Amino acid sequence: MSMVTCIAPVNIAVIKYWGKRNEELILPLNDSISATLSTEQMHAKTTVMVSSNFTKDKLWLNGKKRAAEAAGQQSEFVKYRVHVCSENNFPTAAGLASSAAGYACLVYSLAKAYGVEGDLTSIARQGSGSACRSLDGGFVRWRMGSKADGKDSIAEQLFDEDHWPEMRVLILVVNDARKKVSSTSGMQLSVETSDLLKHRVENVVPQRTKDMIEALKQKDFHKFAELTIKDSNSFHACALDTYPPAVYMNDTSHAIADFVHRYNKSKGVNKVAYTFDAGPNACLFLLEADVPEVLGSLELVFPPHPKEKSFVRGLPVRRLPAMQDAELFQGPHESGRIKYVIHTKVGSGPRLVKGSDVHLLNDEGLPKNVIPQ
Amino acid sequence: MSMVTCIAPVNIAVIKYWGKRNEELILPLNDSISATLSTEQMHAKTTVMVSSNFTKDKLWLNGKKRAAEAAGQQSEFVKYRVHVCSENNFPTAAGLASSAAGYACLVYSLAKAYGVEGDLTSIARQGSGSACRSLDGGFVRWRMGSKADGKDSIAEQLFDEDHWPEMRVLILVVNDARKKVSSTSGMQLSVETSDLLKHRVENVVPQRTKDMIEALKQKDFHKFAELTIKDSNSFHACALDTYPPAVYMNDTSHAIADFVHRYNKSKGVNKVAYTFDAGPNACLFLLEADVPEVLGSLELVFPPHPKEKSFVRGLPVRRLPAMQDAELFQGPHESGRIKYVIHTKVGSGPRLVKGSDVHLLNDEGLPKNVIPQ
Repeated sequence: MSMVTCIAPVNIAVIKYWGKRNEELILPLNDSISATLSTEQMHAKTTVMVSSNFTKDKLWLNGKKRAAEAAGQQSEFVKYRVHVCSENNFPTAAGLASSAAGYACLVYSLAKAYGVEGDLTSIARQGSGSACRSLDGGFVRWRMGSKADGKDSIAEQLFDEDHWPEMRVLILVVNDARKKVSSTSGMQLSVETSDLLKHRVENVVPQRTKDMIEALKQKDFHKFAELTIKDSNSFHACALDTYPPAVYMNDTSHAIADFVHRYNKSKGVNKVAYTFDAGPNACLFLLEADVPEVLGSLELVFPPHPKEKSFVRGLPVRRLPAMQDAELFQGPHESGRIKYVIHTKVGSGPRLVKGSDVHLLNDEGLPKNVIPQ
Repeated sequence: MSMVTCIAPVNIAVIKYWGKRNEELILPLNDSISATLSTEQMHAKTTVMVSSNFTKDKLWLNGKKRAAEAAGQQSEFVKYRVHVCSENNFPTAAGLASSAAGYACLVYSLAKAYGVEGDLTSIARQGSGSACRSLDGGFVRWRMGSKADGKDSIAEQLFDEDHWPEMRVLILVVNDARKKVSSTSGMQLSVETSDLLKHRVENVVPQRTKDMIEALKQKDFHKFAELTIKDSNSFHACALDTYPPAVYMNDTSHAIADFVHRYNKSKGVNKVAYTFDAGPNACLFLLEADVPEVLGSLELVFPPHPKEKSFVRGLPVRRLPAMQDAELFQGPHESGRIKYVIHTKVGSGPRLVKGSDVHLLNDEGLPKNVIPQ
């Protein structure tokens, strides 16, 4: 019997992945680049237990039993059955790449449990495309690759988490009541129906990827922000150009984007970047020195709901008074449009965690915490 | 002394104009196609008075005095000064191409007053681009032209107002509190910054224009709706791809689009088309036979504000009970998200109106109705 527990990070793409060239193997239509977020604030945690006593593979996700498909694929090659339990330490409500962190953690933990060496990103990719980018820290590039079998569609680190230590991230969790279009189906429909997506993947992203790597290398925040913002809007434009359209940003999302543009304009230089995934939540990038004023201004324009006692979570920070600029403050909006903010930074890849009380499974291989069905 | 009064229609583009190849002459980057709406429900009305007694050109728009620039341009060529008074019979709140109808009416009325013959569309175009499409009835094509002086960038009728008599139009006036990005500045920024717009104007619109003309010729509503919807979303995608982004649709706009897709899906064929201009209001196209059920369903999903006593205005119509389809009714939304609906149809171009009481100016050449400044 052996038990391992690992944690894996969330990643946020600054050059977006949208569209597959192979649905089965999850091979993307373009390269993408992401920042790995610190596991201190947000992570997936997975415990894998291998035992000769187990009669079949079992999987628990966020406290609920699930069909053990992913683990089941291993069964021809391994002697013993496996129990897997996985949780995110952040609410699913945050809607932020939880599946990427979860799959990365699953693959990483199974590899640790079975002693698998070598590239894991092409395995993680086949669970959830962007999961491959969560297998390393810092800034990560997922290469689209060109081989039909996808062997060269792997993720690799561009710069490690110490390259740009001032970089900070604010996750703005937005109130939303709408029914979601899943990113998987939206993406597939975009490939089938969007004329603009073809142009994006062939003509826009290749140059932008090069420019992004250069901006990261030079630590040119102004350029980094411009590219990040443009690529987010380009992706959502292609989603909107889909038939029927896939709409992920809502009025609050657009109000946040507008806030960022006004803030940057008033500073005469880009101080904040925004990016949106397949949901309404915003991810802002900014430098450590700018966090206090940006948070102060944000709270003035988007007042927290009066009942929300911890509006800013994660890394501790002073809030400075908001910038005095009337143009910036179109609003304030009604309170609670942003539910809360997670303050975090760029961090490292997955890792094994040690200790007797870190595991999610007890000695019998059953979850310590289960949500009744 | 002579006095003429004319009315001119609103037009709604089904292939959108977005982007100029020449700012000065207002020459577009692509052809566009519009439907001219009946003047029975919505029109601009203009009275032009020419008199040897006038000492200078004067202009009143919607009850307010304005600088008489457009009229002023005539002063080198004409002997007498002119007074112009113009009004829309629909609230500016509708935000629907009021400037197009207004400019078309101004140009048409001045032409009548001075006895000018020949193509007026290239003159109207230089006031407000899409105004040139309001100078004819039915379905109108504005050709981008290729000449540097813009002489061949003119509007021409594709099909007259009797070609497809079953076609109906619902203008959905949407509640909106946001600050607007003007279409002129949004359009210019798109040309400067959107990579996707280049692709749209060069590769997408030319084929779609051909397909639209064919769908109109065949009176193929299913295809007409698909092309209309796709082109609206393509335009808004390019607006979103602009840096900074130009966002015109809001959550209610997207909810209306979603309603249309659900309705069409439940029917197994496109029964309704939507299109959005540079604002949140929706314009729906549909056939006469489908109006009662669509209106019934719309009112169930988007309940009117309790104080709104005339939710559906314009052409009289029975409402049928809403379609019984649970999937359709995501909602209902909170009441009042759609303020009211104007029910109208495709109509004819501008015309002179006769009678002693039609004029907006009195015998002294002053407006009968003036809003105090």
